[in-house]
Amino acid sequence: MKPVSVGLLGLGTVGCGTLNVLARNADEIRRRAGRSIEVRRAVARDLKRRRAADLSGIALSDNPDDVVNDAGIDVVVELFGGLDPAHGLILRAIDNGKHVVTANKALIADYGQEIFEAAQRRGVMVAFEAAVAGGIPIVKAVREGLSGNRIDRLVGIINGTTNFILTQIRDKQRSFADALAEAQLLGYAEADPAFDVNGIDAAHKLTIIAATAFGIPLQFGNVHIEGLADMDSRDVLYAGELDCRIKHLAIAKRTRGGIELRVHPTLIRGDSMLANVEGVMNAVMVDGDAAGPTLYYGAGAGAEPTASAVVADLIDVVRALTSDPENRVPHLAFQPGALSDVPVLDIGDVVTAYYLRLQVKDEPGVLAAITRVLGDLNISIEAVMQKETSGDGKPVPLVLMTYPVRERDMNEAVDRIRALDSVDDKVVRIRVEPLHGEACGERA
Amino acid sequence: MKPVSVGLLGLGTVGCGTLNVLARNADEIRRRAGRSIEVRRAVARDLKRRRAADLSGIALSDNPDDVVNDAGIDVVVELFGGLDPAHGLILRAIDNGKHVVTANKALIADYGQEIFEAAQRRGVMVAFEAAVAGGIPIVKAVREGLSGNRIDRLVGIINGTTNFILTQIRDKQRSFADALAEAQLLGYAEADPAFDVNGIDAAHKLTIIAATAFGIPLQFGNVHIEGLADMDSRDVLYAGELDCRIKHLAIAKRTRGGIELRVHPTLIRGDSMLANVEGVMNAVMVDGDAAGPTLYYGAGAGAEPTASAVVADLIDVVRALTSDPENRVPHLAFQPGALSDVPVLDIGDVVTAYYLRLQVKDEPGVLAAITRVLGDLNISIEAVMQKETSGDGKPVPLVLMTYPVRERDMNEAVDRIRALDSVDDKVVRIRVEPLHGEACGERA
Repeated sequence: MKPVSVGLLGLGTVGCGTLNVLARNADEIRRRAGRSIEVRRAVARDLKRRRAADLSGIALSDNPDDVVNDAGIDVVVELFGGLDPAHGLILRAIDNGKHVVTANKALIADYGQEIFEAAQRRGVMVAFEAAVAGGIPIVKAVREGLSGNRIDRLVGIINGTTNFILTQIRDKQRSFADALAEAQLLGYAEADPAFDVNGIDAAHKLTIIAATAFGIPLQFGNVHIEGLADMDSRDVLYAGELDCRIKHLAIAKRTRGGIELRVHPTLIRGDSMLANVEGVMNAVMVDGDAAGPTLYYGAGAGAEPTASAVVADLIDVVRALTSDPENRVPHLAFQPGALSDVPVLDIGDVVTAYYLRLQVKDEPGVLAAITRVLGDLNISIEAVMQKETSGDGKPVPLVLMTYPVRERDMNEAVDRIRALDSVDDKVVRIRVEPLHGEACGERA
Repeated sequence: MKPVSVGLLGLGTVGCGTLNVLARNADEIRRRAGRSIEVRRAVARDLKRRRAADLSGIALSDNPDDVVNDAGIDVVVELFGGLDPAHGLILRAIDNGKHVVTANKALIADYGQEIFEAAQRRGVMVAFEAAVAGGIPIVKAVREGLSGNRIDRLVGIINGTTNFILTQIRDKQRSFADALAEAQLLGYAEADPAFDVNGIDAAHKLTIIAATAFGIPLQFGNVHIEGLADMDSRDVLYAGELDCRIKHLAIAKRTRGGIELRVHPTLIRGDSMLANVEGVMNAVMVDGDAAGPTLYYGAGAGAEPTASAVVADLIDVVRALTSDPENRVPHLAFQPGALSDVPVLDIGDVVTAYYLRLQVKDEPGVLAAITRVLGDLNISIEAVMQKETSGDGKPVPLVLMTYPVRERDMNEAVDRIRALDSVDDKVVRIRVEPLHGEACGERA
């Protein structure tokens, strides 16, 4: 069969990784796909820069129009990233009848609906496995592998930078700032790591994967996002004493009142599979009503892991080239028009257990005052960990683990506790996520 | 669109699980697949038995012909298990132009080639996700999710019974016999657990998944299989002292000389993801040249996890019903005719590090004699662990960890060591598998 012609937008890390994987595994890919996949055109802003890939046989240009308007290109691979000009280019490529493969999580999270509708009308495919968790085929697993399930929960470590930072704090007793500097030195974090550290990157990915899991529209604006910047290394260590770990988790959960969508630092049991996902690795746990918990683990970023997903998408597109568009796997797993309008739960209505760390005066009656506040709001205490006594009247740390409580009530409790004379103004609060078995801290 | 008609062969645990999942999630499934999936006929040997599923609306029969010969049935789901009559029935269903979904690992491992060729000729699909690792969509991950990779290694815990036994031995200090009895009591092991314990079940699954990973023919006969029956609980405990775990692993590995296919008890690092797969859970680690290591974890058996895979296959088949057969995902991942003839390596040529446990006389010169034998065969020792000294002249255990050595040389070494006067005849040997990072025992 005649080769499939690909046009590449972007020759950065992932673009070059994609070229290298396509070249190195050309034989395996042809044996799988039944035909060759050939990159004919590529676009980069600066054509003079050295590239970490062999560009021979590829027509280079600094004008994306040369790819999206070329009638000889079957599939456009968009690796520019960011919203512009990727947004307009993808829409034009679709308009010109081209299939699209993209790694652009921000674009899919923000404009996916518009893009998929355009693709649907034109009868072309838009594939985006590389947008979520790099080399882990998680979109495929959720959309196709678990398609018989009602999915009840997703819990993911889907940002390598924040996971690396937490691993460094725990294993090497580093401060947050030192761990972040190390991540930047090793090339894991961007020079401006804000999107990683403030949780935006994880929220983009959660938006996409939750839509495919629950059959709900993409709705980045409804994700509750807390970053890692305020993380105190003491809490990482105290969590260890409770046989727990703190991970920066992305959670989507089906509840009676609606879907929870949230990204925040979270306590989980130390012996769970997710707790053992270290460094820059990613993992997503999916609870299906039939399959039970399944977990998908691997590298969430990097040139070749991301290229692995791009190439798998290319092969999927090639296999479906001649298929009837009506019968293809729907972009968001569920048929367009069959999306659910179940609401996203307000964060105030979310119920979780809590880890609280207070700084309290080392004097009698303090614990009684705090437990009275919690009791008044019907918040039950599961464990108390009193840290070292100073003896000199200085504030000492007090760690409390609560039973599950509605966020709104916890907000009220924290306000009241902060108003106590014997408690410092700063109260650290970290949500707890149970992972199959007892919750974290139950054995403390 | 008109519903798809399914005929079910078998109303046992998985058959009823499949009916329950299809009924409970009918709405989600229709929203995903774009049409309903309806079981119209079902076949069971004993029609009078009570079933754990609602059979209303399903035409029941004790004659499989009623399913495979019914022109109104689009897809046959084969859940009889075993080679006969499943083998003949599947071939007849294919002949009659029906698509097939099966959970039958023995059948696919033994007769897959013949079945896939028949399906190819007739232009129908045979889907078998449920044959490997139950609810984990591992066939899809390897065949489609990682299709851009040259896969270099698979390491799997793909038999829940043996993993449960090893977990019990380790966590509860049970004997092998007690742990097996517990597995039978809990319904994890068959009344005749031979296929689980002797490694045949894992070898069937390895045969299938290795074929899809490496593009080699199905070749169950070439798998080197060692069961768990000789496992001594002492070795499970000693492994723990070396920061390792013993797992019953299925391993497929690409080496220069050929593909390794082997199932045997194996030492792995205690802090690896696979080491933390406990109880009846399954997991498969896949090393791709682009994606790096990825891991897939979940329930490997049980009514609904297996049904999850059956239903996902049904939805895949429904989606591809109108597709051009030439462009479908190939049964074994690679196009028929593009399979590789790379040989399977003889177990004698396999190179691994080894854990050795000897019973030796508690007297001077014993260790020297053993190390001389190993040195003569160029086998290097990485660690020695001398267990308690009896003081009364009785034999004491001696544990050695070697560097990687060719199996053939280890066989010779063990023969020579057993011939030493000061060493008991029984020598325990367990292979070591390194998992990303230092090998097991390096820190001992």
